[in-house]
Amino acid sequence: MKVMVSGHVELPVLQGIEWVKVYPDQALPPQVSEARGLVLWTLNRDFVRHLLEHAKQLQWIQTLTAGVDHVLAMNLPEHITLYRAPNLHEELVTEHTLALLLSIVRKLHVLRDQQREGRWFVPHPFGSLHSKHVVIWGYGNIGRSLARVLKVLGSRVTGVRTQSGHEDGVPIITRQDFPQVLPQADHLVMVLPSTPATHQVLDQDVLDLLPERAWVINVGRGDAMNQEDLLQALKQGRIAGAALDVTSPEPLPADHPFWRLENVILTPHVASQSDRLQSKMREFMLENLSRLHAGEQMVGKVERHKGY
Amino acid sequence: MKVMVSGHVELPVLQGIEWVKVYPDQALPPQVSEARGLVLWTLNRDFVRHLLEHAKQLQWIQTLTAGVDHVLAMNLPEHITLYRAPNLHEELVTEHTLALLLSIVRKLHVLRDQQREGRWFVPHPFGSLHSKHVVIWGYGNIGRSLARVLKVLGSRVTGVRTQSGHEDGVPIITRQDFPQVLPQADHLVMVLPSTPATHQVLDQDVLDLLPERAWVINVGRGDAMNQEDLLQALKQGRIAGAALDVTSPEPLPADHPFWRLENVILTPHVASQSDRLQSKMREFMLENLSRLHAGEQMVGKVERHKGY
Repeated sequence: MKVMVSGHVELPVLQGIEWVKVYPDQALPPQVSEARGLVLWTLNRDFVRHLLEHAKQLQWIQTLTAGVDHVLAMNLPEHITLYRAPNLHEELVTEHTLALLLSIVRKLHVLRDQQREGRWFVPHPFGSLHSKHVVIWGYGNIGRSLARVLKVLGSRVTGVRTQSGHEDGVPIITRQDFPQVLPQADHLVMVLPSTPATHQVLDQDVLDLLPERAWVINVGRGDAMNQEDLLQALKQGRIAGAALDVTSPEPLPADHPFWRLENVILTPHVASQSDRLQSKMREFMLENLSRLHAGEQMVGKVERHKGY
Repeated sequence: MKVMVSGHVELPVLQGIEWVKVYPDQALPPQVSEARGLVLWTLNRDFVRHLLEHAKQLQWIQTLTAGVDHVLAMNLPEHITLYRAPNLHEELVTEHTLALLLSIVRKLHVLRDQQREGRWFVPHPFGSLHSKHVVIWGYGNIGRSLARVLKVLGSRVTGVRTQSGHEDGVPIITRQDFPQVLPQADHLVMVLPSTPATHQVLDQDVLDLLPERAWVINVGRGDAMNQEDLLQALKQGRIAGAALDVTSPEPLPADHPFWRLENVILTPHVASQSDRLQSKMREFMLENLSRLHAGEQMVGKVERHKGY
């Protein structure tokens, strides 16, 4: 089977798979017309449209991202099955989220600012994740992986999903339970995909439920926040701060007030960035295409109406 | 039993214990002359000497710090038994050290500097603690607690102590093994007490064994480093960076080059600081004095010749 690869991803040799490398700045190789699959990384919308015009045999697209909003926005023909990479990023996003949470409680952002001013000074109060209540909004693979390490550190974790329940000792609530749960939260971690159902769901109503000590951490998608509502809550001290790896739009415009608020920590959509990512992509594709080769269903099939 | 408490520590009501509060800026209460014990926090050397002159019945001193170098430096009479607080700080120092390690691999210090300049830019390479080799020099309670959470994150951990061995799957080496082990280290975490045997043990010889990608993290004591050797290694790029919660002296003088090196992260001796510390001190003293009350040995007895 011929499978196209976009972007500069090195993929493993696999029995039954003939890789067809395609580059936006080069002419398409003739094998494109027979390609059944496309592995997508660093999406270039015009180039993908160009590919689809020539790849008449295309049956499936595997994107190596966890979220698929950018791919769905292309309105792919219905007969093309879309797969995402649900497990690929959990280890890295977990580390980045934990880094942000620890940076918040150990005040590393404040201490860094002080270092640049040459000041040796202990800010108060000084915290810990132990005994803190962390609410993870969007409780999937990343949420589970984050909960595992938070529990080792002694935090209390609650997950938020569309169906409530219990999972490995973690209570799962729905948004209907927010009025009972959020007033006790110390950290609200957002790991939501971008779908019509999550559009600006973090708004003033939700923010008003959080206590003044609470931080919002967003490592999902920027458009799940009403940024104006968040800005007002931050400016008025109605919550303690926000650590945002995602914003809307990205990059965040240079004149946006988030850049200059002391209680905002900004990282430029790097939660799943790592020098390990290429080797993890290879492992993931090796595993998923082995399934295909064995006649099994690949993992990560996207339900387009849900958006993930 | 009458027990004196220095500093503004709130201690629990305990059967058999009568607390005698002593303050540097107030006259000593008469019960001092009958006090058998002294619980020490925030040491004021002249005040402790003054106390010892009046507390002729004193048998033991419990310091609430993990390190005792500052108490040993007072040359206490031999008949006074000294106890330290070995477990009190492990949770907090673990969190602070993990915060520093994650900040290093996720480049939060660089991203914070960029934020202040309004720059949305992904620095390279971008890392992870997964698969990284963390060598913990001074492998006691804190080291064990840190190793536990690092293993959840997928790091490889090696401990360094005066006796080699194995502990819960962690290989323990001695300094004699450094030439074989340090060239493979990604992070050298120092949790050493200040004793004559640890004076400036991190020197050029040790630094020369580390690879260029390695970071040094010190959350123990500043005088375990030869800071001039460390500075040269950092300036010449022979190691990647240093995250220092302790320096010698403290505060670090305003003109010290560490303040201004981009690959140095400085925090002002806060690894065990927390708004939870007072409640943890109460728990610890409740537990340790219950032992005394039951006729058992208190934990944390210091062997003065070792220095911990």
